[in-house]
Amino acid sequence: MGGDNAPDSVIAGVKSAEQKYSDVRFLIFGDEGKVRPFIDKYRLDSERYEFIHTPDYVASDEKPSAAVRSGRNSSLWLAIDSVKKGKAAAVVSSGNTGALMAFSKLILGTMPGIHRPAIVTILPTRKGECVVLDLGANAECSARNLVEFAVMGEAYCRAVLKREHPTIGLLNIGSEEIKGRDEIRQAAQILRDSPLSNEFKGFVESDDIALGAVDVFVTDGFTGNIALKAIEGTARLMVGLLKDVAAGCLLAKLGFLLALPALRRLKKKMDPGRYNGAMLVGLKGISIKSHGGADAFGFANAINVAVDTVRNDLVGNIAKQLTSIQFLDEEKEK
Amino acid sequence: MGGDNAPDSVIAGVKSAEQKYSDVRFLIFGDEGKVRPFIDKYRLDSERYEFIHTPDYVASDEKPSAAVRSGRNSSLWLAIDSVKKGKAAAVVSSGNTGALMAFSKLILGTMPGIHRPAIVTILPTRKGECVVLDLGANAECSARNLVEFAVMGEAYCRAVLKREHPTIGLLNIGSEEIKGRDEIRQAAQILRDSPLSNEFKGFVESDDIALGAVDVFVTDGFTGNIALKAIEGTARLMVGLLKDVAAGCLLAKLGFLLALPALRRLKKKMDPGRYNGAMLVGLKGISIKSHGGADAFGFANAINVAVDTVRNDLVGNIAKQLTSIQFLDEEKEK
Repeated sequence: MGGDNAPDSVIAGVKSAEQKYSDVRFLIFGDEGKVRPFIDKYRLDSERYEFIHTPDYVASDEKPSAAVRSGRNSSLWLAIDSVKKGKAAAVVSSGNTGALMAFSKLILGTMPGIHRPAIVTILPTRKGECVVLDLGANAECSARNLVEFAVMGEAYCRAVLKREHPTIGLLNIGSEEIKGRDEIRQAAQILRDSPLSNEFKGFVESDDIALGAVDVFVTDGFTGNIALKAIEGTARLMVGLLKDVAAGCLLAKLGFLLALPALRRLKKKMDPGRYNGAMLVGLKGISIKSHGGADAFGFANAINVAVDTVRNDLVGNIAKQLTSIQFLDEEKEK
Repeated sequence: MGGDNAPDSVIAGVKSAEQKYSDVRFLIFGDEGKVRPFIDKYRLDSERYEFIHTPDYVASDEKPSAAVRSGRNSSLWLAIDSVKKGKAAAVVSSGNTGALMAFSKLILGTMPGIHRPAIVTILPTRKGECVVLDLGANAECSARNLVEFAVMGEAYCRAVLKREHPTIGLLNIGSEEIKGRDEIRQAAQILRDSPLSNEFKGFVESDDIALGAVDVFVTDGFTGNIALKAIEGTARLMVGLLKDVAAGCLLAKLGFLLALPALRRLKKKMDPGRYNGAMLVGLKGISIKSHGGADAFGFANAINVAVDTVRNDLVGNIAKQLTSIQFLDEEKEK
């Protein structure tokens, strides 16, 4: 059991999910001496969880390659293994991201037809919410990888955001001179000729994310990570500058005080915890990354993502859609 | 003379620069019938400008390739040509970006030692301001291109932001699993062994832009464009959500009203006009792109950039720095 606020926020999040979903059971992997006090504190229903004592763990700064060699008795490994063995329907972890990805790939394996798993998340927009992937699993991607991401993102959007016909856009730059990279143009061609042709809206730019111009933004992991962190950094900059404004002037301070209830609602809308729970899609099993700094509300949202994707049979859904797409390079790759 | 608010905002910007710089003269290229009324309106000092009547122009939606074929008598072409001929020290345009880039490359030519020009701009940070390049001139870049951008960005930062020893970072993603793309790692190696080794601070992530973690952020044009537009989109989203908050609640409205003078100072700090004037660096001459939607304040800032880069001999400075860097692939390229 990892994360900056574990085990407190994790167990508090489990309690919240226990109350929300009457038919969900929890397997909790961690060091009993550290976790048990919080199970008692939050009074988890003893009928609804099983505790598996795992003294070994993967440190948050451990390199994935080292963790793969020495972490086979860790709580993370055993939790993912419980999905492989059919004891759990999904794993949710706030621990080491690299190790979660490496272990999940190794234990669960990649879905047939998917060459590379991706990291997918939900972001706030002017209209509501959108889905973005990949956020950093794959620095460089082929056209085929991007099309697979589009299929996975579309299924994820239906499962988690409950949209019936999500629209899809390929992230690109809008310069007149350069129409983006070859693989993006090729991916667009494949999507235009695919069963997703109605959902595919062509190229979008990164300022379209804030506008919610489409439901699913597809890009390689390098670009997705750059966009995500630019968005996070700018949001924090704006909040910081607003606080400076309030601190520097009595009138402004009074003004913000009056606006506080409304500002709190805004903060709630932009709360990263609300969008917590990035899924590793493309695996033969459901593996969810909760942010290391997530609070109970955030961890409960990561559990929501797990429940939604299990109930909507995300893995089966992706597999079905994939078989109906013709890849240009299929012959070459065989 | 192009741009959404031209010629009004352009001539108003020239007037503002005329008052700021007593030793700067202006060549104004445009349609006399359209521009003259604004020269009269803003009372430009007749000793300080020369008007060149150019009825031909490049439309804002014209493709650069078409403009190159048919635009040789346009105001844009003739303005750039005046730099080539030594009649002007720099060109500033609010017109068609693609055409400005294509014409500038064609007329001015690329500096010796520079393989690809880049687009550079200034962005606001928590600490003040930083320099970012490339913003979209080159979708894909080699290690050598990135090193050239670092040299150009460093010189630009000294000239425009007046920093004596600007720090440099290469934009990358921080995942443990993937240490970014090959060309970025190679560029880092070259910079570590170069005369810029003290200034070079290694890899930075896109949330470091808002923090102002370094003075100069170096990246390829695709990634730079993605980061820039993600930043712009998020800033607009936050402002929009704040306005919603104010509109939806009387108390909040009153609060924002009280905070208005302070919010106006904040708006001024974040004003895109303040950061207007993206330079096309790497050319044998100074060519500045003003935003199409720039107002008089913005256009005057683009002129400031032109004056600063001319006075600091940016072109000579870049050439000097470049000759002292050893490129790993120099032999291969010969």
